[in-house]
Amino acid sequence: MQLGVCYYPEHWPEDRWPIDAREMAETGLSLVRIGEFAWSRIEPEPGRFDWAWLDRAIEVLHAEGLRIILGTPTATPPKWLYNQMPDMAALGRDGKARKFGSRRHYCFSHRGYREQAARITSAMAERYGSHPAIAAWQTDNEYGCHDTVQSFSPAARDAFRLWLAARYTSIDALNQAWGNVFWSMEYRSFDEIDLPNLTVTEANPAHWLAFRRFSSDQVISFNRAQVDILRESSPDRDITHNAMGFYTGYDHHDLAADLDVLGWDSYPLGFLEMFRFSEEDKCRYARQGHPDIAAFHHDLYRGCAKHGRWSVLEQQPGPVNWARHNPAPLRGMVRLWTLEAMAHGAELVSYFRWRQSPKAQEQMHAGLLRPDGEPAPALTEVKEAAANVAELGPLGAGTKHAALVFSYTSEWMTQIQPQGEGCSALWAAFNCYSALRKLGLNVDIVAPDASLDGYGLVVVPCSPIVPDALAKSLENFGGQIVIGPRSGSRDEDFAIPPTLAPGKLETLIGGKVTLSETLRPGVVYQGDDWEVAGWLDRLERPQGGATPELTANDGTVASWRNANVRYCAAWPEGALIDRLIEKAAIDGALPAARLPEGTRRRSCKNYIFEFDYLAAVASIKPQI
Amino acid sequence: MQLGVCYYPEHWPEDRWPIDAREMAETGLSLVRIGEFAWSRIEPEPGRFDWAWLDRAIEVLHAEGLRIILGTPTATPPKWLYNQMPDMAALGRDGKARKFGSRRHYCFSHRGYREQAARITSAMAERYGSHPAIAAWQTDNEYGCHDTVQSFSPAARDAFRLWLAARYTSIDALNQAWGNVFWSMEYRSFDEIDLPNLTVTEANPAHWLAFRRFSSDQVISFNRAQVDILRESSPDRDITHNAMGFYTGYDHHDLAADLDVLGWDSYPLGFLEMFRFSEEDKCRYARQGHPDIAAFHHDLYRGCAKHGRWSVLEQQPGPVNWARHNPAPLRGMVRLWTLEAMAHGAELVSYFRWRQSPKAQEQMHAGLLRPDGEPAPALTEVKEAAANVAELGPLGAGTKHAALVFSYTSEWMTQIQPQGEGCSALWAAFNCYSALRKLGLNVDIVAPDASLDGYGLVVVPCSPIVPDALAKSLENFGGQIVIGPRSGSRDEDFAIPPTLAPGKLETLIGGKVTLSETLRPGVVYQGDDWEVAGWLDRLERPQGGATPELTANDGTVASWRNANVRYCAAWPEGALIDRLIEKAAIDGALPAARLPEGTRRRSCKNYIFEFDYLAAVASIKPQI
Amino acid sequence: MQLGVCYYPEHWPEDRWPIDAREMAETGLSLVRIGEFAWSRIEPEPGRFDWAWLDRAIEVLHAEGLRIILGTPTATPPKWLYNQMPDMAALGRDGKARKFGSRRHYCFSHRGYREQAARITSAMAERYGSHPAIAAWQTDNEYGCHDTVQSFSPAARDAFRLWLAARYTSIDALNQAWGNVFWSMEYRSFDEIDLPNLTVTEANPAHWLAFRRFSSDQVISFNRAQVDILRESSPDRDITHNAMGFYTGYDHHDLAADLDVLGWDSYPLGFLEMFRFSEEDKCRYARQGHPDIAAFHHDLYRGCAKHGRWSVLEQQPGPVNWARHNPAPLRGMVRLWTLEAMAHGAELVSYFRWRQSPKAQEQMHAGLLRPDGEPAPALTEVKEAAANVAELGPLGAGTKHAALVFSYTSEWMTQIQPQGEGCSALWAAFNCYSALRKLGLNVDIVAPDASLDGYGLVVVPCSPIVPDALAKSLENFGGQIVIGPRSGSRDEDFAIPPTLAPGKLETLIGGKVTLSETLRPGVVYQGDDWEVAGWLDRLERPQGGATPELTANDGTVASWRNANVRYCAAWPEGALIDRLIEKAAIDGALPAARLPEGTRRRSCKNYIFEFDYLAAVASIKPQI
Repeated sequence: MQLGVCYYPEHWPEDRWPIDAREMAETGLSLVRIGEFAWSRIEPEPGRFDWAWLDRAIEVLHAEGLRIILGTPTATPPKWLYNQMPDMAALGRDGKARKFGSRRHYCFSHRGYREQAARITSAMAERYGSHPAIAAWQTDNEYGCHDTVQSFSPAARDAFRLWLAARYTSIDALNQAWGNVFWSMEYRSFDEIDLPNLTVTEANPAHWLAFRRFSSDQVISFNRAQVDILRESSPDRDITHNAMGFYTGYDHHDLAADLDVLGWDSYPLGFLEMFRFSEEDKCRYARQGHPDIAAFHHDLYRGCAKHGRWSVLEQQPGPVNWARHNPAPLRGMVRLWTLEAMAHGAELVSYFRWRQSPKAQEQMHAGLLRPDGEPAPALTEVKEAAANVAELGPLGAGTKHAALVFSYTSEWMTQIQPQGEGCSALWAAFNCYSALRKLGLNVDIVAPDASLDGYGLVVVPCSPIVPDALAKSLENFGGQIVIGPRSGSRDEDFAIPPTLAPGKLETLIGGKVTLSETLRPGVVYQGDDWEVAGWLDRLERPQGGATPELTANDGTVASWRNANVRYCAAWPEGALIDRLIEKAAIDGALPAARLPEGTRRRSCKNYIFEFDYLAAVASIKPQI
Repeated sequence: MQLGVCYYPEHWPEDRWPIDAREMAETGLSLVRIGEFAWSRIEPEPGRFDWAWLDRAIEVLHAEGLRIILGTPTATPPKWLYNQMPDMAALGRDGKARKFGSRRHYCFSHRGYREQAARITSAMAERYGSHPAIAAWQTDNEYGCHDTVQSFSPAARDAFRLWLAARYTSIDALNQAWGNVFWSMEYRSFDEIDLPNLTVTEANPAHWLAFRRFSSDQVISFNRAQVDILRESSPDRDITHNAMGFYTGYDHHDLAADLDVLGWDSYPLGFLEMFRFSEEDKCRYARQGHPDIAAFHHDLYRGCAKHGRWSVLEQQPGPVNWARHNPAPLRGMVRLWTLEAMAHGAELVSYFRWRQSPKAQEQMHAGLLRPDGEPAPALTEVKEAAANVAELGPLGAGTKHAALVFSYTSEWMTQIQPQGEGCSALWAAFNCYSALRKLGLNVDIVAPDASLDGYGLVVVPCSPIVPDALAKSLENFGGQIVIGPRSGSRDEDFAIPPTLAPGKLETLIGGKVTLSETLRPGVVYQGDDWEVAGWLDRLERPQGGATPELTANDGTVASWRNANVRYCAAWPEGALIDRLIEKAAIDGALPAARLPEGTRRRSCKNYIFEFDYLAAVASIKPQI
Repeated sequence: MQLGVCYYPEHWPEDRWPIDAREMAETGLSLVRIGEFAWSRIEPEPGRFDWAWLDRAIEVLHAEGLRIILGTPTATPPKWLYNQMPDMAALGRDGKARKFGSRRHYCFSHRGYREQAARITSAMAERYGSHPAIAAWQTDNEYGCHDTVQSFSPAARDAFRLWLAARYTSIDALNQAWGNVFWSMEYRSFDEIDLPNLTVTEANPAHWLAFRRFSSDQVISFNRAQVDILRESSPDRDITHNAMGFYTGYDHHDLAADLDVLGWDSYPLGFLEMFRFSEEDKCRYARQGHPDIAAFHHDLYRGCAKHGRWSVLEQQPGPVNWARHNPAPLRGMVRLWTLEAMAHGAELVSYFRWRQSPKAQEQMHAGLLRPDGEPAPALTEVKEAAANVAELGPLGAGTKHAALVFSYTSEWMTQIQPQGEGCSALWAAFNCYSALRKLGLNVDIVAPDASLDGYGLVVVPCSPIVPDALAKSLENFGGQIVIGPRSGSRDEDFAIPPTLAPGKLETLIGGKVTLSETLRPGVVYQGDDWEVAGWLDRLERPQGGATPELTANDGTVASWRNANVRYCAAWPEGALIDRLIEKAAIDGALPAARLPEGTRRRSCKNYIFEFDYLAAVASIKPQI
């Protein structure tokens, strides 16, 4: 694994560059990510390029032996470009244009902007494509950040109609698939279809699902256009992009298929504060992040990445500026996060950013250096981590314990139709992940069409659509299986299957879901040390089908068992999913043991890593 | 009482229709509501009608002895119509057009759409007006659903100006009535008046009240246009419409005046979850609904209905899809709800819907059949209820105990000017209703101009405007009277009367309200087992006027008494209003006795019904 | 001190005017504020003036010896004017026009409206400028009420560009100052700059700060145009304006520089309910207001006012209509508030309003008379207060104890970039003020450039920008100094200074802030009877620099001391700031002693006032 850093030479006086470069090298960093927000400096006026400064910046870094990840600057088109075609703005769900003045002010469907993005990408690729300092390219920056994947612009509407025509071929097929007869929503041609926002009450969930798929596809094709240019003009360089945390606006499996390495940006403290953790956990882990946040994404993006190549392109080094509250990490956490990324297989951890900016939107975002150029607390830890990394050598492959099946479509569907507040496929997956990890198990988060070979346990937390490949691999799977609610409850177009849920999984589970209901907080059925809450499926099962396993005091069945398959009939959360997964792990003879609060483990061929989040300590033992 | 069901033949293959029809008949259903969302199938293209399928569907149902309630499809105009005149969309209070893609995408004031609604109504009425299977017509569907009565469109603005000119005759009269001099808001002509949305701070409450009245009147005239056509082309058929729960967007007394039967749609679990019940009640009654929800509306709409004819046009049979959380009813509740509707005088309970749809917006809304066509849990209970209904025979008239006076205008006024958060006339009425019912009393919810003959007790929970008819009938009333705060506090145009509140009721109450204040949660004055909260009126009374009755420990007077009249000076809620109404009931020698938690009673000439919501049991005893 | 009242003769029949005037005089009132909402009566049609009624109203009041504060009616332009130029509307941050129908429906940058405002002001000034009854003029009414200072209209955008060009001279200077290179936000000309609303994510804080300054300047120049006309046509009359509570939309120091007397509108109960007090305080003081609300503004606006001349132009006399809950004040509070204003140096307390209006937006707002013309409870207290005021005679100057430094720019900056939820400079100032007052100290709230002579203690709660004048006066100050977090952390254009916080104060404080973090509720470091919460600065200090003073149990340093200077490293709130300020007061030998809960004191040359808010009692003792 290498260490790197994000750097913005255009922010600093040129005489500082050599000092920065030398300090980076001395710190143990070998890769520097630059360029992704520099369009206004690269092309200060339409068609007039200024490469000189960037040439020099690259030379200065290269001279210190540092290699470059060069970003295409398409996340920040300059004002002159925006003014040339103001309709390049995305429109929000409220129909309002999202203006210039920050970043990501473009609609993925705007043809004019697509041309401009290709133009600047080509220009950069031609200039630096063969430069020996260039190790890799990053396309754009954080697709979807600030909720920018869905655009409700005329450009998006026109593109959506074409996309629908390609997918459904005939308007009758679409009307039939969506059930548009329901409220006389039938269309006579694709040109009659609008975007699903601003309807009087909720639009057809099938309409939304199509729009979510379309919006994801627009990101993929926008990215692919850059990839194609870069492959052509800059052969043998890796192409990467930086994904985000708890973000599901586009299908990362699809994006990763076009990349060599999938990167992501890890901000454990900001994520803890802004996402749905309990108040208790938000306080307990305020300076560490919940112990599953970083690892969940490591394992998720490793599973998305082609050939499993992934990295952390931005690593939080101190307080950030964008959460409601922005505490500093505990001493030790920057090193812990770095080693944890390594343990999960990262090929790079790149800290964001080298030096804190004294100006503009992120002036309160810490760096490895303070705004005055002196070392910030993280710098010492990065040096420690660099030494540790060098010392360890190769880790060998991660041990295979459990696979957790997750698809972006599942999360889109539960967002579109939660039925009960908070019933999200993403968070069901996170809960199951956490349950596995609290037992000390390695987890691979895999796509529905992934091979399940070699695992002792497979968990499908909530997968409304079950592709044939998944149904087949589960049937053939010899280990333990845990399946959560809503799985198999829908077809490709959001319709309930003729045989009801769990559809293709009925034989496997040994029963049919005849009624699903959701329960408000406060309506729970108490089991021993767990409870039924949030969701409840009623199962009708044939002779020899599933039998109740966990049953609440009042007789409510929380989970069913059919040979090696368990079905969680309640929402997979809290102690219930912990118990259920523990039972499966024991039945599967996996090396499961309850770890202390806040401790997590990762096993590789050569080492066992243990991460004590409460104490901010990472310890590493060789495998015996 | 008959039982019925809502059915959408256009959703299902034609070979299923006879099976459905036979099963309906076998279940004990005799009426089937169809057609109200089928415009795109009736008129797939502008001017091209396809009646054949509907002819056949009606025949199939008729062949099983079922009779039809046929809906006009004006709640779901097709896309081709919307595209012909996109300005038919209502504009929201935020000024944004509410687009096609769900239902109710029209503005009640749009002349073009009014013509189209008349056209399709005429076409249906001519086709089926004399068909022997047609028992009744339903106009449109759930006027106002998804907050669609108020539209802020140019069409509404123009219509509002005409409405104002008709009401006030001269602009000076309007300026004077509204007090427009206040902030130089005086108009020089009706054409200067805009809709009251998007003002810098709140608009004149008189402006809002006029707009609320106008908006209600637009619904009434929209509906009347359909009624006129149907009466002409389909004589001797009942005309009905389905009102909603806790919905006050238009004046239901006015609407019902044009109908033969007023229907409503009863979803006790959804209403409990979405409306303002305590967290405790939302959990305690999650699978039953609060025991006063259904009955309140039965008694309200019976009071609205011409000749007291009313029905339940949609009855919840299982989980719905539209509340934050959607639990399943307890076994027994569908039968209980059915018998309760009967006890309150319904002439029909129609379940929504026959079969759960596998597609579109309501795919998670239960039916009597599951999506796979098999019986859902409710079906058994419907059969039981059908048997019970058949067994009981005529109930005789409901016993007259208490009248509760409610007007829609009152609720509009407390919405426009709550003065204290949560002080709503509707919920004041609900609280008083609940207090009466917990004592086992029958309640008639009546309009302010209704006769009060035969009652032992009259409650006026909160009636800012007191029409002369009400003032007179209260003066002449010999029984006990309870009057709540704000009553008589305004004239027809929202002005404080020259003599202050309670205006026309001053002699009756025996005092004048000289100061009204509102109290935040946490500021309460403790009485014995009740408290003063939310609102407090200070009363100045003459010699021989009202005397304090309930007085808090610190001397704050919660209620006043003047002979047979009690004035509740605090907000009518909680134990205070329970005690006050109990005192009045005792003084009036009504058969009042505190029922156990969750139990309610309804007395008719021939039977006494008792509904135990906690146990989900309905029991019926003959009157002795 | 004089007493006065706000009066609207245009609301009442002319034959009532003499009765009102006589009663005012008998009550002990000597000044009457009129005219500020009467445009539609003064100029009922474009260019046609009707002065007759206003002439008579002024004569009637004058005949009773009352003198007039005459308001320019520019807060309520009539509909005919709005219709002449609909683009005079301000646009909200959401880009929507804010329509006619209430008040303040204008954009401060609209040239056409500026001309109209000048025209009506000239007309009034010419008519009444030399009238002997006219004691003073009030410009407009409550600038900024209903969030009307910031407008996002084309007029505002154009004016903003001119303002920026004047401030920064060259676009390069602006780009450099704002750090626009950060996300390629560089502009090529001032004409490329838009308003900072509706950006994809937050705009540059420097962009927002410039817009806040610009918006404030537009109010100042709008007001100055009226002042210039009035000074010309009505010499020797005071000019005033009524500011609001907890309102920081424009810089009141700047506005006051153009006025003779700065007025403000005091609504203690409404402010308690609507602003950020604890639920406990909102209940405890529901009928009194928090004991520091009124005094804080008295001391703030005295500090803003030229020559220290200030008044209460509107004083709450009973329940208001605009808070979530609107209780009545405790008997005694109207007298207490009046005497408290006197104790703090007001030259006028004017009650709002003489008589409660039976119509329009404020019909639930109490007056000294009820809507029926009879005395409301406050009238008795006003008579008592008038007698007290007459009895006391001159108070002499307020004793100088502590100065508290506050600037509007500080609050704008913490609003733009709170970094931790709730970290506001205004509320930091309020907390420090409250801490001082609980010790019985007099406080002067002063601008950063004010002289600090004569004080024993200076508090700078949170001043991101430290002007040179403040740095110098603190250096030269011999007494005790308390400085709060973020002080000195920014330059004039929102950039972190090259030496980091506290910038110019580093030597004074004896340390450098190397890291700032914010803490969520629940993450606290416990000290003896106080805690570190909300914010935490880490200090690096040289030999002989600051030393820790208050240290939490875990070693976290809450405050630092360097000779006579204390630095509060945590958010200044709760017991921590109370302790810290008490220590400083003791070290400074100020006459500090903890007062009982709810009691406050104000010392003048001749008297000591004590205000017991819990008991609603004001007591006055001569100085010994």
